[in-house]
Amino acid sequence: MNKYKAVIEYDGTDFNGFQAQPEGTRTVQGELISVLSRILDDRISISYSGRTDSGVHATGQVIAFVTEKELDLYRFKWSLNNLLPPDISVKRLEPAGISFDPRRDARWREYIYNVVNSDNQSVFLKKYSILITRKLDLGSMVKAAGAFKGKYDFSPFSSPSIREGSNIREIYRFSLNVKGDGLLEFTVRANSFLYNMVRIMIGTILEVGKNERKISEIEQALNTGKGSFSSSMAPAKGLFLKRVGY
Amino acid sequence: MNKYKAVIEYDGTDFNGFQAQPEGTRTVQGELISVLSRILDDRISISYSGRTDSGVHATGQVIAFVTEKELDLYRFKWSLNNLLPPDISVKRLEPAGISFDPRRDARWREYIYNVVNSDNQSVFLKKYSILITRKLDLGSMVKAAGAFKGKYDFSPFSSPSIREGSNIREIYRFSLNVKGDGLLEFTVRANSFLYNMVRIMIGTILEVGKNERKISEIEQALNTGKGSFSSSMAPAKGLFLKRVGY
Repeated sequence: MNKYKAVIEYDGTDFNGFQAQPEGTRTVQGELISVLSRILDDRISISYSGRTDSGVHATGQVIAFVTEKELDLYRFKWSLNNLLPPDISVKRLEPAGISFDPRRDARWREYIYNVVNSDNQSVFLKKYSILITRKLDLGSMVKAAGAFKGKYDFSPFSSPSIREGSNIREIYRFSLNVKGDGLLEFTVRANSFLYNMVRIMIGTILEVGKNERKISEIEQALNTGKGSFSSSMAPAKGLFLKRVGY
Repeated sequence: MNKYKAVIEYDGTDFNGFQAQPEGTRTVQGELISVLSRILDDRISISYSGRTDSGVHATGQVIAFVTEKELDLYRFKWSLNNLLPPDISVKRLEPAGISFDPRRDARWREYIYNVVNSDNQSVFLKKYSILITRKLDLGSMVKAAGAFKGKYDFSPFSSPSIREGSNIREIYRFSLNVKGDGLLEFTVRANSFLYNMVRIMIGTILEVGKNERKISEIEQALNTGKGSFSSSMAPAKGLFLKRVGY
């Protein structure tokens, strides 16, 4: 038995999310399983660092799969990229220890979120960012992002999920990078994230930037674990799973 | 009479080039004329800094048009961007002197060309770069690009064209920027370019990078104005008209 780890990139626009679903629904996992099973002539299943929602992109999703065959890494990666659809690609492929688990072994996940704050959005960013024409207050958004840093019960900043277990998460980094042409790039890194947590935090920060919400509301929710900000959730298309750290 | 100047961006993938053509052929100029004529309720014609070929992109094409109306710039730009298809956008709109001519008044044009030199191409770059898996010699490509700098008869580096006049052009800058993940970005600036000139120069430089051509061949062609490199032309999709200087 051989285990392999792959770093995957995908444009989420035309997928119904990462996780495989019944026939007829196009998912990233479904496409990966189909191509892997075809090349390896076996029923292959894959594990992954975490699912992404419909419309969310990735430049650094990590998956793993097991096969009896010993792979020529360079050729196998080449075959995969030739058979995968144009909106998925394998960036890296390497051997992994047989106990490697992309979800459990991940020390952190990093996401970025793109907001264009201008009167107009570049044609090259329309699928990868959201447009906010109203002038945002950058200073207060930086402060709001900073308020999320640390170890808290993030339940108020998540959508209901059937997953069980603790809702305590730790955010290590939450920064705002001002790029050209009105592009604002948020970067957030945590040990892991609850369901919809990044999009709800971003949506809340954007409300602070529009003066529609106070930072003290965020602080209070984090300190008490009470309340719900899920109606503030930002759209999927601005979100990228950028890297997973092991 | 009022003249306006606009800076236009477009994703060239789904256009048959910039220049308007007979009915049924989708062009950037055709879309611009159609939307401008509709909003201004008049038959509007546009002038432009230079046409781009089918599949070539632009982040800084410059156009001009004349209307009897006096425009509210902010609102008019907003209307334009609402009515234009998602692959064209107006970045800037400003009043221009009545004698302004985007082609004749241009002091220089700057293009960029994207090459991914890796075993694999990012899904986000497939429409905007070409992939070369064979390892390119960066040092010799930088030298080859440098050989083009200066004032020469660039006929050997152009496709036949019905346009008349001198084939002397002056290249001010031709640089190679090495970005992440194997992305090589060429930038070339000249007073103006002959037909297909950027793509033919890039294709020739890539042949040097593959050790299939010597820099002395470029130098000789530039010094004599003789020969033809048009069969070396690089594909359209890696090319962007980046800026026009006035």
